[in-house]
Amino acid sequence: MADKLKFEIIEELIVLSENAKGWRKELNRVSWNDAEPKYDIRTWSPDHEKMGKGITLSEEEFGVLLKELGNK
Amino acid sequence: MADKLKFEIIEELIVLSENAKGWRKELNRVSWNDAEPKYDIRTWSPDHEKMGKGITLSEEEFGVLLKELGNK
Repeated sequence: MADKLKFEIIEELIVLSENAKGWRKELNRVSWNDAEPKYDIRTWSPDHEKMGKGITLSEEEFGVLLKELGNK
Repeated sequence: MADKLKFEIIEELIVLSENAKGWRKELNRVSWNDAEPKYDIRTWSPDHEKMGKGITLSEEEFGVLLKELGNK
């Protein structure tokens, strides 16, 4: 299981999907170990206590994603 | 190390960032184990032989992301 990592979901932005067990793939801003919040795409259990693998995006990376997706 | 997983990068879409070691965080379409390609955000080594943790997005999930980000 993942070590006891400290995290706080600062802002829930987008729910991308939800599966039959209620786990949701979400884009949020999450603070990991009291660091500055980062954009974060991963799956979460309904109570947001458990999480799946995912990816964090810095402000710059999220900015590139927004810009480039806007051109798609 | 991750088991020997079969993957093929079908289409390189967006490079979000590159670190000092040349590893890049990318949005691509990737086929895992010969399955239908999925959108995929993760870090890759310069030769695309090694990869980091990331997230796959189905067509629907990517569609929601595009639509919602367009509203941001």
